[in-house]
Amino acid sequence: MLIPVILSGGAGTRLWPVSRRLFPKPFMTLPDGQTLIEKTARRALAVASSDALIYTVTSRDYSFITRDAYAGIAEFAPERQRFLFEPMARNTAPAVLAAALAIQREQGDDALMLVLAADHLIQNLAGFADTVAAAARLAASGQLATFGIVPTHAETGYGYIECGAALGSDGFSIARFVEKPDAMSAQAYVDSGRYFWNSGMFCFRVGSLLDAASAVAAEVLGSTRACFAASLGADHSPPASALAASIVLDADTLARVPAISIDYAVMERADQRAVVPATFDWSDIGSWTAFSDLVPADSVGNRSRGRSVLIASERNYVQSNDRVIAMVGVNDLMIIDTEDALLIAHRDQAQSVKLVVDQLRLQQHPCTDLHLTVQRPWGSYTVLEDAADCKVKRLIVKPGQVLSLQRHQRRSEHWTVVSGSAKVRVGDATFLLHRNESVFVPMQTLHRLENPTDQDIALIEVQCGDYFGEDDIERLEDRYGRC
Amino acid sequence: MLIPVILSGGAGTRLWPVSRRLFPKPFMTLPDGQTLIEKTARRALAVASSDALIYTVTSRDYSFITRDAYAGIAEFAPERQRFLFEPMARNTAPAVLAAALAIQREQGDDALMLVLAADHLIQNLAGFADTVAAAARLAASGQLATFGIVPTHAETGYGYIECGAALGSDGFSIARFVEKPDAMSAQAYVDSGRYFWNSGMFCFRVGSLLDAASAVAAEVLGSTRACFAASLGADHSPPASALAASIVLDADTLARVPAISIDYAVMERADQRAVVPATFDWSDIGSWTAFSDLVPADSVGNRSRGRSVLIASERNYVQSNDRVIAMVGVNDLMIIDTEDALLIAHRDQAQSVKLVVDQLRLQQHPCTDLHLTVQRPWGSYTVLEDAADCKVKRLIVKPGQVLSLQRHQRRSEHWTVVSGSAKVRVGDATFLLHRNESVFVPMQTLHRLENPTDQDIALIEVQCGDYFGEDDIERLEDRYGRC
Repeated sequence: MLIPVILSGGAGTRLWPVSRRLFPKPFMTLPDGQTLIEKTARRALAVASSDALIYTVTSRDYSFITRDAYAGIAEFAPERQRFLFEPMARNTAPAVLAAALAIQREQGDDALMLVLAADHLIQNLAGFADTVAAAARLAASGQLATFGIVPTHAETGYGYIECGAALGSDGFSIARFVEKPDAMSAQAYVDSGRYFWNSGMFCFRVGSLLDAASAVAAEVLGSTRACFAASLGADHSPPASALAASIVLDADTLARVPAISIDYAVMERADQRAVVPATFDWSDIGSWTAFSDLVPADSVGNRSRGRSVLIASERNYVQSNDRVIAMVGVNDLMIIDTEDALLIAHRDQAQSVKLVVDQLRLQQHPCTDLHLTVQRPWGSYTVLEDAADCKVKRLIVKPGQVLSLQRHQRRSEHWTVVSGSAKVRVGDATFLLHRNESVFVPMQTLHRLENPTDQDIALIEVQCGDYFGEDDIERLEDRYGRC
Repeated sequence: MLIPVILSGGAGTRLWPVSRRLFPKPFMTLPDGQTLIEKTARRALAVASSDALIYTVTSRDYSFITRDAYAGIAEFAPERQRFLFEPMARNTAPAVLAAALAIQREQGDDALMLVLAADHLIQNLAGFADTVAAAARLAASGQLATFGIVPTHAETGYGYIECGAALGSDGFSIARFVEKPDAMSAQAYVDSGRYFWNSGMFCFRVGSLLDAASAVAAEVLGSTRACFAASLGADHSPPASALAASIVLDADTLARVPAISIDYAVMERADQRAVVPATFDWSDIGSWTAFSDLVPADSVGNRSRGRSVLIASERNYVQSNDRVIAMVGVNDLMIIDTEDALLIAHRDQAQSVKLVVDQLRLQQHPCTDLHLTVQRPWGSYTVLEDAADCKVKRLIVKPGQVLSLQRHQRRSEHWTVVSGSAKVRVGDATFLLHRNESVFVPMQTLHRLENPTDQDIALIEVQCGDYFGEDDIERLEDRYGRC
C-alpha cells in the first residue's frame, strides 16, 4: 500500500508579495487557476490506490486553508484525508518521522510512504507515476529511495546527490549527498553526468525508515516518538461535520525535537539508500522568474496577468488584480502587484526578494504575514478601509459556517447584508438578516454571525470605535477551537 | 493697477496617473504640500497690490476645486476673486481676451493684466517680482510684454523667442517667435544667446491688447466679444454664501470662437511687442522627471515619497500613498503609484507617458478622468469597494455644505456616520445622525445629506442594488446648480 505524505511548510519569501507567512507558496494560484498544494494532492491521488489514505503534515496555521484547498478536489474524499498539524516549524525530519509513526500505527511497518513537497510543480504526470513505481519497488526491497532530478544547469541553490552502482534498472545506490555547492563545483557535477539534484521527495517502507532512524538518528526519532505519543493524548477531533482525522502535534514535546532535515538526520548517514532518476519535469517555483515562465510570452517577451499597458517595454512579467499597470521604456522587470504591496525586481535579481521581506519584518509591516483579504475557518474578510475613525470590512461567510460568539470592548459594528441571508444574534435576539438589511451591534454586546444557507453570504461591516485590532475580540464560543 | 489673470487649463497627461482629466496638474500636491495653482495664486498675490482683483480663467469642471484651492490661502479674500468658467477648452486666445474684456469692464483700458499659467513652478519670488515690475513698465508704455526664460538646454518641447533691439533696461523688442524647433535648431538658438524660451506669461495694458487684437485678430476678438456679451446675460451668480463673482462663458457663442493660442493669434502678428528676460527659476513640471527633481535624493540617487524598500537599486523616483513599494536591482525608474493605477517608466522616456493615457482613453478606462477619490462641491467621496453586489463609499461633507435632494431608481443606501454629526432627510423625516448611528435610505426615496456643523463629517455609504452608476441620481434641488 502506497501512502502519500504531503509536506507543506515553506514560507516562499522569494515569492512575496503574493506568498506571505499566513498564505504561503503552496496556496498561490498558478496561471492555470490551480494552487501548488492542489496540484500536489492531485499528483498523490494519481499514484495512490483509490482507497489509500493521504497524509498532510503542515503548520496548524494552515489547517483550514489546507482543508479548503482539498475541498475543491472532488475525488479527494474527506475520509481519506489525514492531517498532522505542527504548532511550530521543526524542519523535515520530525515531520517525516511523525508521519511514519502515524502510518505505522494505522497500516503497519510494510506500508510504503511517498513523501511529496506541497510546493513543487510537476507537469508530466505519466513520467511521475513511472518514477514513483520504480521508487516503490526499491523501497519495498528495503532501500530509502530519493527522487533525483537530472540537472539542467549548474544551479547553486540545490543540494546534489552523487550516484553509485546501479540497483537493477530502477535506480542507483547513493555515493554521497552534497550541500549547495559553489558554481564551479556545480558545473563539474553537471558535466560528470553522475549527479542529480536532491528534490526532497522520498519513498520509504515505513519499517525501514524507522529502523534506519533508530540506527543513525536515535535522538530525533526518540523525541519525535515522545511528541507523537503526547499528541495522541490530546487528539483534537475535527468538527463533527468533517470526517478527516487530524492530530495536532504536542507543542511542549515537539519543541524538544531537533529541528533538522530528513536528509541530514537520516539519508546522509543511513545504509541502503537509493536515488531514482526522475523521468518528469520538475520545478520548485523558487522565484518570480520561475513563476513567470508559466505564463505565455507575447512577441516581445512580455508576460501579463491582469490589466497592463506596455509601451516600448520588453521581456517583462506583470501581474496585478484590479489595478492598471502601465510601463514605458522598461525591460526585464518582474512586477508583482497586490492590494497593499508592490514588487518591482530585475529578473536577474529575483532571488533577492527575500531581502525585502527581511527588511519589512524588521519594520513589523503586516504585509509580510497577511493579505488585506484574510482567510478564516468560516470564510474570509477583506479590509476595505482602515482609518482613525472607522474600519470597514467585507465579510464572506461560507455555507453552514458560523463565526464565534463574541463581543468587543472598544468598537460597535454596523452590518449590512449585500448578498444572501445571514442568521444573526445580537444580545439575546436571534433573527435572519436578508440582503439590503442592516443591524447595529453595540459595543460590549454579545453577537454571532452564521450562514444557515447553502450559498456564500456577503456583508459589509462598518466598525466604529477608537481601536479596531483583531485582539479586541472576546470569544465565548467557537466551533473552530479559538476560544 | 496690476491685475493678475491665472490661466488654468492644461491636462498634464504626462503626469498621469496622478494628473487626470478632472484633477489635472495644477491641483497636484507638490512635495512641499502646496499645489501648483495655490503657488500661482500666492505668486499673483505677492506682486499685486493688496486690494487688486485676481482673475482666474478655467474650465467649469474645475470651478469648485479651484475655489477650494484658494480657500486655503488666508490672504486671498473671496471678494478679490473673479472667475471666468469655460464650458469647453478653446486654447489661450479666447481665455486671455475674455479676461481683458472683463477687466476693461471693471477697471478700464489702463489696467495692466498679468497673465500667469497655473501649472508653472517658480521658486524665486523676489526675482519674479523684479521681472514683473519690468514687464509692467513696458506694458504701461504700450508694449505687449512676454516673459522670456533664459534657456538652460536645447529643449525641443518649447517655443523660442528671438530678441531684437533693447528697450531700455527692461527688455527687448521681439524679432520673431519660433515654434518648437528640431534639436539642431534648438542648440543653435541656445548657443546664439539671442533666444528665450516662450513661457506663456504676459503683461498687457488692457487697451493695448484689445487694440492689437482688433488689428491682427479681428475674428477672434469679435467672436470673443460676442461670447462675453452673451455670457453676461446669463451671469451665473455664485451661492449667496460666497462673495466671489463668476461668469460662465456662454457655450454656444464660445464654440464659435477659434481655438487658437494668444501667441499665434496676437503676439506673433502684433507690433509693439517686447520680451522681458526672466530673473527667476522656472519649470513647467512637464514630466515626472521634472517633478521628481523636487524631492531630495539619497546617497545613491533614489528619491522617495511614501513607504518603500529599495535593494540594490539606484537613481529611482518612487511615489505612493499607503502601499509598500519594494524594488530589487532596478535603476533609473519613475514609479508612480495611485489607488487604481500604477506607472513604471524609465526616466529617459517620461515624455511618453501620454501614450499610455491615449491607450487607456481608447479603452475608456475611468483612470484617465477620475481618481477613486472624487472631489465634489460639497466635499468628496472615495470608492472603497465596487462589486457586483454592492458599492461602498466614504463620504466627506465639508462644514456648511449640503448634497442635492435626490433619489435613486436602482439602489438603496445604508449610511453610517463615523465622524461628526450629519443632518439627514429621508422621505419626509429630517433628523440629526450622530457618530456611530446609521440610517437606511430605501430605493426611490427622496433623501438629502447636510453638514450643519463647523467640522467635516464622514460617513460610510453601503449601496445595495443592481446598478451603482453616478447617472442613477435624480436631483430635485441642488445648491450647486447640478439639477
